[in-house]
Amino acid sequence: MNKSVQMLHRIINLTVRDVRFPTSLEQHGSDAMHTDPDYSAAYVVLDTDSGLQGFGLTFTLGKGTEIVVCAVNALAGLVVGRSLEDIVSNFRGFYRLLTSDGQMRWLGPEKGVIHLATAAVLNAVWDLWARAEGKPLWKLLVDMDPKQIVSCVDFRYITDVLTEEEALDILMKAQEGKQHREDQMLNEGYPAYTTSCAWLGYSDQQLKQLCTDALKSGWSRFKVKVGADLEDDIRRCRLIREMIGPNNTLMIDANQRWDVAEAISWVSRLAEVKPLWIEEPTSPDDILGHAAISKALAPLGIGVATGEQCHNRVMFKQLLQASALQFVQIDSCRLGSVNENLAVLLMAHKFQVPVCPHAGGVGLCELVQHLILFDYICVSASLSNRMCEYVDHLHQHFTCPAVIQNAHYMPPKDPGYSCEMLESSVKSHQFPDGDIWKQHMKK
Amino acid sequence: MNKSVQMLHRIINLTVRDVRFPTSLEQHGSDAMHTDPDYSAAYVVLDTDSGLQGFGLTFTLGKGTEIVVCAVNALAGLVVGRSLEDIVSNFRGFYRLLTSDGQMRWLGPEKGVIHLATAAVLNAVWDLWARAEGKPLWKLLVDMDPKQIVSCVDFRYITDVLTEEEALDILMKAQEGKQHREDQMLNEGYPAYTTSCAWLGYSDQQLKQLCTDALKSGWSRFKVKVGADLEDDIRRCRLIREMIGPNNTLMIDANQRWDVAEAISWVSRLAEVKPLWIEEPTSPDDILGHAAISKALAPLGIGVATGEQCHNRVMFKQLLQASALQFVQIDSCRLGSVNENLAVLLMAHKFQVPVCPHAGGVGLCELVQHLILFDYICVSASLSNRMCEYVDHLHQHFTCPAVIQNAHYMPPKDPGYSCEMLESSVKSHQFPDGDIWKQHMKK
Repeated sequence: MNKSVQMLHRIINLTVRDVRFPTSLEQHGSDAMHTDPDYSAAYVVLDTDSGLQGFGLTFTLGKGTEIVVCAVNALAGLVVGRSLEDIVSNFRGFYRLLTSDGQMRWLGPEKGVIHLATAAVLNAVWDLWARAEGKPLWKLLVDMDPKQIVSCVDFRYITDVLTEEEALDILMKAQEGKQHREDQMLNEGYPAYTTSCAWLGYSDQQLKQLCTDALKSGWSRFKVKVGADLEDDIRRCRLIREMIGPNNTLMIDANQRWDVAEAISWVSRLAEVKPLWIEEPTSPDDILGHAAISKALAPLGIGVATGEQCHNRVMFKQLLQASALQFVQIDSCRLGSVNENLAVLLMAHKFQVPVCPHAGGVGLCELVQHLILFDYICVSASLSNRMCEYVDHLHQHFTCPAVIQNAHYMPPKDPGYSCEMLESSVKSHQFPDGDIWKQHMKK
Repeated sequence: MNKSVQMLHRIINLTVRDVRFPTSLEQHGSDAMHTDPDYSAAYVVLDTDSGLQGFGLTFTLGKGTEIVVCAVNALAGLVVGRSLEDIVSNFRGFYRLLTSDGQMRWLGPEKGVIHLATAAVLNAVWDLWARAEGKPLWKLLVDMDPKQIVSCVDFRYITDVLTEEEALDILMKAQEGKQHREDQMLNEGYPAYTTSCAWLGYSDQQLKQLCTDALKSGWSRFKVKVGADLEDDIRRCRLIREMIGPNNTLMIDANQRWDVAEAISWVSRLAEVKPLWIEEPTSPDDILGHAAISKALAPLGIGVATGEQCHNRVMFKQLLQASALQFVQIDSCRLGSVNENLAVLLMAHKFQVPVCPHAGGVGLCELVQHLILFDYICVSASLSNRMCEYVDHLHQHFTCPAVIQNAHYMPPKDPGYSCEMLESSVKSHQFPDGDIWKQHMKK
C-alpha cells in the first residue's frame, strides 16, 4: 500500500442526493416493463479528513429514489468515522458489516433497496481507494496481489461453487499474459454494443436513422427491445436485421415481460432474425425458468442473457449451476459493488460463461467499464462472445465520461471509479428542488 | 358483495408510522444471525370517507424501519383516492399496479423494502375489506366464491406451475367438507408450536423453566434456535429433548447461518435429538442449496423448512419445483399480503407440501392465523404435519390479540385482519419520539 493510503483518509462525512433526469419525456430507455423511466441516481459523496473525496452512486428509474436515499442514510453510521485504511485492510469484513447488520439485514438480505444503497456506498469507497492510490479503479484492481483481491470477497453462501482457494487459483493462473492484455486494452479498448438505436418507444423512422448513424460510427453489435407486441417485434427486428446485414450481431431484450412458456414461443418466432441472445425473458428471480428457456432455445442457436436485476451472488451462483444463462450480465449498482462483482466474475470464469455487463442508465457505463477491463486482463483472458453494453445518454453530466472509440470502451485514465458528476448537473437535477424539476412541475 | 362494500369506502388518507419495541434489551427474538432485534413495524392506517378504517403492518427488526415507512409513502399515491369497491373488483389489477409501477419496480421487483411496504399497504386494504364485510379475514376468504379468490391472485411468472384454471380446480375440489372443517376450527382451533422457550440468548436455566411451564400449558411442539456454536447446540438440544420427552416434537432453526456443506454436517450432528425440520439452514435465496440439503438430510428423517425470508411467489415456486423444502413457511408481511400468499398456498397444495406459517415478531401471529385457517378449511383439508408458529410476545399491544387455547390458535371473531394496535401503544413506541424511546435514549 502506498503512502497516500497510509495517510488514513478518515471518512468524516457522507452525503447522499436524489438526482433525476427527465428521460421519460423522449422515451429514452423505454422497454416492455419500464415504459417511462426517468434515469436517476442516489448519489453519494464521502468526505475525508485529508480532503480527498469518494464519489459513488446507484442507478434508479425515478420514483422511489428517495427510498434508496433513506437507506443510504441508514447505512451512513457504519461508514462515517472509519478510515479508508481500516476498511480496505479488512474489506471482506466491512462488506459483511454493511450487509449483515443484525437489524437491517431483515430488509433484504442483500437485495432490493438496501442492497442498492449498499452498492452506492461501496462504490464511493472504491472510488476513494482508487483516488488515494492515484489510479483508475480497473488499474487498482489489475495491480493488486491476487490474495488481496480475494480478501475483498465475501464467500458466504457460495463456497459450494467457489472457495477462496479456487478463486486464488483462477487469479494466479491468469497472471500469464496479463501485461500483454493490459497493453492491448490501452491500444484497442474493450468491445462494446449499442442499445441506443432501438428503444421500444422509438418510431421506425428513428430506428432507421439511428442504425444508419451507428453503422457509420463503426458499431457492429445492436440490441433491440421486444416483448410488448409480437407482430410489432417481428417488424422491428426484421427492419434492424435488414439495416445491419447478416454479419453484424443482433440481440433482443424483453425486460422480464413473459412467463416461461410464452418466452419460448415468442422468441422462437423471432429466431428468423438470428438473435445472439434473448435478454431477461422472464422474472429475474426465476432460475429454473431461465434454465427451461435456455434448454428450449439452444437448438435455435439463441442464448439466454440476464443479470441487471439479478440481486446478488447467490442468485448468479444458481443461474450458473443450473445452466440457466449463457451470458452473465453483471451490474455495477445492483450487486454489492466491486466486492460482490468480483465473486460473480470468478464464478462465471469457473463455469466458462462469458460476462457481458449491463450498462446504460446513468453512470453505469462509467462504472462497469472498469470491471470488464479487469475481467479481461485478470480473469477471463478472452474476448470471445464478450462485449459491454453502451448507451449514448447522460455522459455529459460526469467529470470523466466513458470514452468510446470505434465501438470500443477506451480504458479510463483518471484516478477513481469515474462516477463523479458535475456539481452543476447534480444541483440542477436534484429532485424535487433542482431547476430542471421546478420547471418541469410548472408545466 | 353486501351493502357495506357498495357504500364504496373511498380511501381519503394513508398514514404510516415507525413503531419499535425494545426487545433486544432482554434477548427476546435473538438468533444466530439477528443477535439484537428490536421487534418493529411500519404501521399503516387507511381512512375512508365512510369513517371505516383499515389497519395493516409489515414486520421489521428495528433499524431501517424508517426506510420501509418511506417506501409506504411512495406507494400511497397509488392507493389514496381509490374506493374499496374499485380495488376489490379487480384486486389482481391493483396488486399488479402496486408491484409493477414502471419506475418503482426497479427497486425490487417484488422483493426487499418495496415489497415489505406493499405488504403493509395491502394488509391494510384486506383489513378494510374484512371490516366492510363485518367478518374476520379468514371468514371473508372462506365465504368467497372460488372464482373471486382466484381473481385476487397475480399468476404472472408462476403459470408454468399453476394456472388460473388449476387454482380454481383445487378450490372447487376442497369445497367438500368445508363446513365441517370450519366447525372443527371454531371448536378446537388450529395446532400451534412454540418458539418462546429457546431463543439463542437464553440461559439453560431459562430454557428449563420455560419448557416446564410450556408443557404444563399443553404445548407439545417446540422450536430451538441453533447455529452459533455446535457444542452449545448439542447441549441445548439434548436438554430440551430431555425436558419434552421422546413423543413431543422438536424443530431446529439456524436462521441462515451456514453454507450448504456446513449445514449438512452440522445438522447431521444434531440428528440424535430427532428434529422434525431444520429451518433456514442457508441463504433464503439459495433454492439449489436447499435442494442439496433436503436430499442429504432425507435419510436422517429431517426435513427442510424455509420461507420467512423467501421474498415472493416466484421463489416459493422454485423451492417447490426443486423439492428444496418439506415445510412451506409463509409469512404474512414478507409476501405481497393475502394476494400473494393465496398463490403460495395453492402451489404448496399442488405439490402436497404442508404449510407451517412463520409467526412471532410483532403482529405476525395475529395476521397469519387467518391465512392458515383458510388453508385448512378451503385448500389443504389436512392437519398432517401442519402447525403454525406461536411466540408469546407483544400481543398486549393489539386490540384483538391472537387467542391460544391448549396450544391451538382459536379463530378470531372480530371483523378485520387483527392487526390494529392500541393507539396508546403506537404513541409510546413510535420511533424516535415515543416515550419508551425517549427514556431509552436518556440512559
